[in-house]
Amino acid sequence: MHVLIIGAAGMIGRKFLDRISAEPDVLGQEIDKLTLVDVVAPTAPPEFESITSSQAADLADAGVAARLIATRPDLIIHLAAVVSGEAEMDFEKGYRVNLEGTQALLEAIRLEGRNAPYKPRLVYASSIAVYGAPFAPTISDDFALYPLTSYGTQKAIGELLLADYSRKGFLEGIGIRLPTICIRPGKPNKAASGFFSNILREPLVGQEAVLPVDENVRHWFTSPRSAVGFFVHASTMDLGPVGPRINLSMPGLSATVGEEIEALRRVAGDDTVKLIRRVPDPAIQAIVAGWATNFEGRRARELGFTAETDFDDIIRAHIEDELEGRVGG
Amino acid sequence: MHVLIIGAAGMIGRKFLDRISAEPDVLGQEIDKLTLVDVVAPTAPPEFESITSSQAADLADAGVAARLIATRPDLIIHLAAVVSGEAEMDFEKGYRVNLEGTQALLEAIRLEGRNAPYKPRLVYASSIAVYGAPFAPTISDDFALYPLTSYGTQKAIGELLLADYSRKGFLEGIGIRLPTICIRPGKPNKAASGFFSNILREPLVGQEAVLPVDENVRHWFTSPRSAVGFFVHASTMDLGPVGPRINLSMPGLSATVGEEIEALRRVAGDDTVKLIRRVPDPAIQAIVAGWATNFEGRRARELGFTAETDFDDIIRAHIEDELEGRVGG
Ligand SMILES: NC(=O)c1ccc[n+]([C@@H]2O[C@H](COP(=O)([O-])OP(=O)(O)OC[C@H]3O[C@@H](n4cnc5c(N)ncnc54)[C@H](O)[C@@H]3O)[C@@H](O)[C@H]2O)c1
Ligand SMILES: NC(=O)c1ccc[n+]([C@@H]2O[C@H](COP(=O)([O-])OP(=O)(O)OC[C@H]3O[C@@H](n4cnc5c(N)ncnc54)[C@H](O)[C@@H]3O)[C@@H](O)[C@H]2O)c1
Repeated sequence: MHVLIIGAAGMIGRKFLDRISAEPDVLGQEIDKLTLVDVVAPTAPPEFESITSSQAADLADAGVAARLIATRPDLIIHLAAVVSGEAEMDFEKGYRVNLEGTQALLEAIRLEGRNAPYKPRLVYASSIAVYGAPFAPTISDDFALYPLTSYGTQKAIGELLLADYSRKGFLEGIGIRLPTICIRPGKPNKAASGFFSNILREPLVGQEAVLPVDENVRHWFTSPRSAVGFFVHASTMDLGPVGPRINLSMPGLSATVGEEIEALRRVAGDDTVKLIRRVPDPAIQAIVAGWATNFEGRRARELGFTAETDFDDIIRAHIEDELEGRVGG
Repeated sequence: MHVLIIGAAGMIGRKFLDRISAEPDVLGQEIDKLTLVDVVAPTAPPEFESITSSQAADLADAGVAARLIATRPDLIIHLAAVVSGEAEMDFEKGYRVNLEGTQALLEAIRLEGRNAPYKPRLVYASSIAVYGAPFAPTISDDFALYPLTSYGTQKAIGELLLADYSRKGFLEGIGIRLPTICIRPGKPNKAASGFFSNILREPLVGQEAVLPVDENVRHWFTSPRSAVGFFVHASTMDLGPVGPRINLSMPGLSATVGEEIEALRRVAGDDTVKLIRRVPDPAIQAIVAGWATNFEGRRARELGFTAETDFDDIIRAHIEDELEGRVGG
């Protein structure tokens, strides 16, 4: 099987590569070719070095999608995106990458199918940002998509296109609406959502972290480990039972900041929790107030997607996967 | 006020022009310039001939949207579309006109606003085709948009773009999700939905009409007169109370084919009803089974949009507007 990963140098791309390196048969079929694409050339995993083509390319540039698809990959994982804050700041860049890049990919697949039958599996990274306030207390699978950001708009349009191209038989699409990933590994970043991870990740290595919102702020989470699990399952599952509504809100965990902190206390102790510094930021508090707090995720669970159900497990997954089992500075 | 109507040669475009001709102050401000665009040059209404520029142009052709917007119209009514059946048959044409044409218009407005402040009102014709089965018994304003046709997908994407461009302050957008228009004036056409109008319009002039489905088939309707009323209201209303969810399911009337026929009997008599010939067509029956049957339309009604509440009124509106008050061959 030839696997193409677009946006492979990003956080989820790297974690997905770690997973298939550790479990080379996790996709059900042997991988005999791996193409990795990102704006900077991604690092090939040592286990797959001989069969990997790593390419620096911009998906939205003319001809890039067609060139990638001309090699007829069987499975395409589409992770490339300008994320939320940047898409809101740079309107043109967001539309270029998130909308036109995705359109270019879909069109390349449709047109390649005219040369000879071709119907790859395409797994699309969407986001709960497709939803906008006011919300129902729990967002069901039937709840309307009214995004309140350009990023959310672009992801919602990507979902609609994916569904229509799938319905027409041009590809086998499946869209994964990811919860906010927590604990996001790496350095603290400036995303408005960053503190949800920072207040756990930094104290776990003995560093201070800033909490800009109240402890009663509630949000919707899953671990990087579960997120990778979603992409693995979406790559291998039978799509028959999914029906025409192929974009699925993933399972996750609804938790308040206070619950995050109590989980940290249970897993890592009081001294770790003391490293969280409260510096209220009304701007961040206001942004976060417009975010979804709880999803039903019924269809995704029925279709075999799974995620952590308590925050202690999310923290333990981070300690195992990122800290080699050790807590402390 | 300069009014631009795109798709002005179509059914709703012509009816809208009839309305402003009959009631020149219905838009609140005096119209001092009228630009009419369609793939064939629309006919200027005699009342506005001296201030009308009628143009044959394809909205999706390069440069057309920018040329139209360079004249800085205050109110833009965007009716141009490849309709449902054709968009399903001709995938490329549907995307070109319904998606790229709409995108080109939005982008032209955004870019014109860079030259000098510009924020026109844009009224967008959407459709209940943005919804796909399975439905709730009554579709609320919170119900998810999962279209099952390329046309519905393109309209849903147009809605999302309109909302994002409005949120960013590039324009004042409002989207009108039209019910199926009944009685559609003119000749019978090949649209799968055509029979809903044919079985009334043809008997009312003494002609036979074919009914291809069961009498218990239910659907969601409004008259051309109400549809024009929606566009008038959307052109003039205060958008403040609408909030960010600017795409509205219009009020309408849920009725079965049997109820249509009984209304025809009440308004025009038994002999007229006898002109309906039952010729079951399983293909049409199957298509229609996937269509929405009933909407709540609560927000639109609260915001002042109104429509007929019984089918007798829909038939009487047709007799008044199209038949000069007379029934019969
Ligand atoms: N992490 C989350 O909490 C989260 C939540 C919801 C959705 N998502 C989505 O999941 C996907 C992956 O997320 P992530 O956390 O790994 O993000 P990331 O930013 O770490 O990775 C995205 C990658 O896409 C690449 N990219 C951007 N523009 C590109 C272009 N034009 N051509 C090729 N590559 C390009 C970037 O260089 C980056 O490496 C994204 O689509 C994101 O929108 C993530
Ligand atoms: N009539 C209905 O039942 C109904 C229901 C829901 C939505 N709508 C929508 O309302 C709008 C008007 O409907 P209508 O019944 O008047 O349809 P119509 O087909 O009579 O009119 C549409 C007009 O758009 C024009 N057009 C098509 N492509 C164009 C292009 N590229 N550039 C410029 N003009 C172009 C056509 O020539 C036509 O005159 C459409 O957008 C339609 O999708 C109609």
